[in-house]
Amino acid sequence: MKAGTPPTERTMPVTALPSLPIDEIPAAVVGELEAFLDERAASISLIGTPVAEALQRLRAFVLRGGKRVRPLYGWVGYVGGGGLRSTEDPSAALRAVAALEFIQACALIHDDIIDSSDTRRGQPTVHRDVEARHHDARWRGDSGSFGRSIATLIGDLALVYAEDMLQDSGLSSAALNRAREPWRAMREEVIGGQILDVSLEASGEEDEAAAEAVNRFKTAAYTIERPLHLGAAIAGASDAVIGAFRRYGRDVGIAYQLRDDLLGVFGDPEITGKPAGDDIREGKRTVLLARALARCDRDAAHRIRAGIGSADPTIIDEVTAIIAASGAVDDMNARIDALVSSGIQALDAAPIDSDTRGCLERLAVLATSRRR
Amino acid sequence: MKAGTPPTERTMPVTALPSLPIDEIPAAVVGELEAFLDERAASISLIGTPVAEALQRLRAFVLRGGKRVRPLYGWVGYVGGGGLRSTEDPSAALRAVAALEFIQACALIHDDIIDSSDTRRGQPTVHRDVEARHHDARWRGDSGSFGRSIATLIGDLALVYAEDMLQDSGLSSAALNRAREPWRAMREEVIGGQILDVSLEASGEEDEAAAEAVNRFKTAAYTIERPLHLGAAIAGASDAVIGAFRRYGRDVGIAYQLRDDLLGVFGDPEITGKPAGDDIREGKRTVLLARALARCDRDAAHRIRAGIGSADPTIIDEVTAIIAASGAVDDMNARIDALVSSGIQALDAAPIDSDTRGCLERLAVLATSRRR
Repeated sequence: MKAGTPPTERTMPVTALPSLPIDEIPAAVVGELEAFLDERAASISLIGTPVAEALQRLRAFVLRGGKRVRPLYGWVGYVGGGGLRSTEDPSAALRAVAALEFIQACALIHDDIIDSSDTRRGQPTVHRDVEARHHDARWRGDSGSFGRSIATLIGDLALVYAEDMLQDSGLSSAALNRAREPWRAMREEVIGGQILDVSLEASGEEDEAAAEAVNRFKTAAYTIERPLHLGAAIAGASDAVIGAFRRYGRDVGIAYQLRDDLLGVFGDPEITGKPAGDDIREGKRTVLLARALARCDRDAAHRIRAGIGSADPTIIDEVTAIIAASGAVDDMNARIDALVSSGIQALDAAPIDSDTRGCLERLAVLATSRRR
Repeated sequence: MKAGTPPTERTMPVTALPSLPIDEIPAAVVGELEAFLDERAASISLIGTPVAEALQRLRAFVLRGGKRVRPLYGWVGYVGGGGLRSTEDPSAALRAVAALEFIQACALIHDDIIDSSDTRRGQPTVHRDVEARHHDARWRGDSGSFGRSIATLIGDLALVYAEDMLQDSGLSSAALNRAREPWRAMREEVIGGQILDVSLEASGEEDEAAAEAVNRFKTAAYTIERPLHLGAAIAGASDAVIGAFRRYGRDVGIAYQLRDDLLGVFGDPEITGKPAGDDIREGKRTVLLARALARCDRDAAHRIRAGIGSADPTIIDEVTAIIAASGAVDDMNARIDALVSSGIQALDAAPIDSDTRGCLERLAVLATSRRR
């Protein structure tokens, strides 16, 4: 797989890793999340009915969600780092990487409050769901504020459960010690990246380097680099293997976000599940936007600045057209291809077996595909 | 110290524990928090200036705060549980119990958003402080919403730092394993207790048992029972000692909250630092309120229900007078005395040395004193 190869369809099967087929990982992750939540439901429900209800909401959110990208990369890191030849129990390693889904649950629930989002994956967001419960029951006070309050606490609970699921995974103390570095960094990077993102949106930052930093920390490190690092650290992989995984994760992770930025402006709503031009409406300060502004003449740049954050479909269409005409899209596509290529080449620096290499190549293509 | 003994002044010195005087613990805790934050500042500041600023706000909040009640009880649990005779490093144990201050920081920062509080400990709350920063810089969007968003993320960071400070404290793997049970329960109890509290306020619950459950989980377990349990577990104390500490913590912790409820209605603003009748204004569903409602005649109960949550000083004064006349205050005082007494008696069930016993007696008096 080199830069320029056309992206493959998402239906393409990913090569099986030795002993556990990778396409069975998402379902296995859900099974572990379910078992963890079942075990915890008993103690927390004793506190009272509203708490049992809150746990039920967290459960529904976590179990219905997403592609399990982070546990998947964590698992590849574990297997590719030699975990199946180590003394660490594979099912403990699976639980440890499944815990990443609770970090993600907290991030999404809190982000949806921050962005005032009404829906997520075709369902009401957690704060909207709780708001409706308050409204239907005709409780005291403001329903919206109640929804945000309870959803904030549900997110806090998810964050705490991530820690518990890792610590209680059954990994050896030695593996838990090795997991410290990626685990510590990953949570700092995702929260720090989100603080940066919210701040840049508020200050209307146009510097491409600032948008790059958001991509680096909030997406690349959190979604690919650190999950791979975590899995490999649990396996007891060498520094060379961890270094190669991290460079792959950084490059492919940034490419993944750049593709996301393109889809956020030009994506087909049928495929992305989000309305067209959503990032323009939300006023996101993406690398794509910074590049378009840098490439435009003064008048076009002025029209972008005036239109960004608008909810008016005509204005969104106009901004979309200006970005399309600016040449920024070609820049982004070229950069995505180069990053996927350099990320995969980084794997050559370490003794990584061909199954793992093939799997990471295919995952890189899937993550940055125009059809994802 | 038996029920009925008049509460002592808060200036009374608490007996020194063997080897580390208890009144030096709060300063030692601050020192550990400072060292932890200094170490973490480097990596997180690399993400960007807004993140360095957020860390600065968390630092100011954590370092200026409170009486360090939870680490204090944690330390007494460690020393009283035989920690100084164990192989666990006392400075590692101190760092582990100091980590409780980060849980508390998250709880307070998120609570202040939930309650829309403007000040905390005489300073603007974190979300108000960030709001002012947005307003002064004339950034885009709504300042209030920006303040709440960044403060939510600062609270998340505090929660993550609590986990890191415990895991990286330097405790042995065996001690970290023993810490799992109280640590796991404590976080579930404080978040669950807060979900219950917010929900009861919304539903206007008047059942005394429901208000008791909030006291049990949000205050007693989180503030006294589990910190003692945590310290004793780190020390490797016997089940008998842990059981005695937990019963003490439960009883004294509930007494502490009942005193807080009385001060929230009748407290001298000069001493409590909060306006008189604050709990009535906030519409808190306390045990005191439930008891007053149960003791009143229909008319008085109706006036309480109509007045609770009001910001009008005349109505607050009226509700205060009805509660005072209901006999509920005498009930509460008698119950506080009985709980302090039964909590201290619970210590007799285990081999707890006289220094620890004396220290816990004095802490119980301080925690439930009318002048606190």
